[in-house]
Amino acid sequence: MHTEDNCIFCKIVNNEIPSHKVYEDDDVVAFLDISQVTNGHTLVIPKHHARNVYELPENIAADVFQTVPKIANAIQRQTGAIGMNVLSNAEEIAGQTVYHFHIHLIPRFGHDDGFGAKWETHMDEYSQETLKQLATQIKQYV
Amino acid sequence: MHTEDNCIFCKIVNNEIPSHKVYEDDDVVAFLDISQVTNGHTLVIPKHHARNVYELPENIAADVFQTVPKIANAIQRQTGAIGMNVLSNAEEIAGQTVYHFHIHLIPRFGHDDGFGAKWETHMDEYSQETLKQLATQIKQYV
Repeated sequence: MHTEDNCIFCKIVNNEIPSHKVYEDDDVVAFLDISQVTNGHTLVIPKHHARNVYELPENIAADVFQTVPKIANAIQRQTGAIGMNVLSNAEEIAGQTVYHFHIHLIPRFGHDDGFGAKWETHMDEYSQETLKQLATQIKQYV
Repeated sequence: MHTEDNCIFCKIVNNEIPSHKVYEDDDVVAFLDISQVTNGHTLVIPKHHARNVYELPENIAADVFQTVPKIANAIQRQTGAIGMNVLSNAEEIAGQTVYHFHIHLIPRFGHDDGFGAKWETHMDEYSQETLKQLATQIKQYV
């Protein structure tokens, strides 16, 4: 397992910094986000240090995400949330502030509960031909 | 594999509705979101029908998410994005509009590119004792 010096999430994994954990297994830790964007806001992280989704090994991606449904349900049961946003931000432009991959579980209680997404559709700007080309181009790199 | 009648994503899985696919394996399909919130906006879905993260079987959660890093990197490589938001919305309050679990990969190009998140911190409203209790309560249900 790779650990990085001066990474606060690696320090949480190693219990060098206190946190309020809600789940732990051999590969994954989940703990309350101190910002509590909404009540019960939780982070799920791999113990292995990876910067973000771009650098996340596939087996670790699987390890982390397979824990998410049960943690989401536990948060829902305790808080009475009526929905949830599951979010991981990669790089500063996307809102990443700690460079150790993490998934935010943000339980939702209403439209003014602390979280929201701006969501512009651009459907009219893309022809079927343009979308077809774009898909073909992305596919060659997967 | 469970398929649900009248689910548009099950129809995409079964090629009954056309889509612009960027990836497919035995368990997972990824295709361009027609709304193109940002250029290259892609959905990753399990072939198995599950409503959302609350009802997602653990093994299927693993199958889906292990494909996300390679698809994210392919989108990044093609579009020149400088970051990415990885997002799954559960239930209407969270913005879910199609009730077949899906993960949005939203490449980011700047602050006015079509996506953004409202993000209120409530750190000052929670004591360490309150957080400790909340974590203990959630933990009992995981």
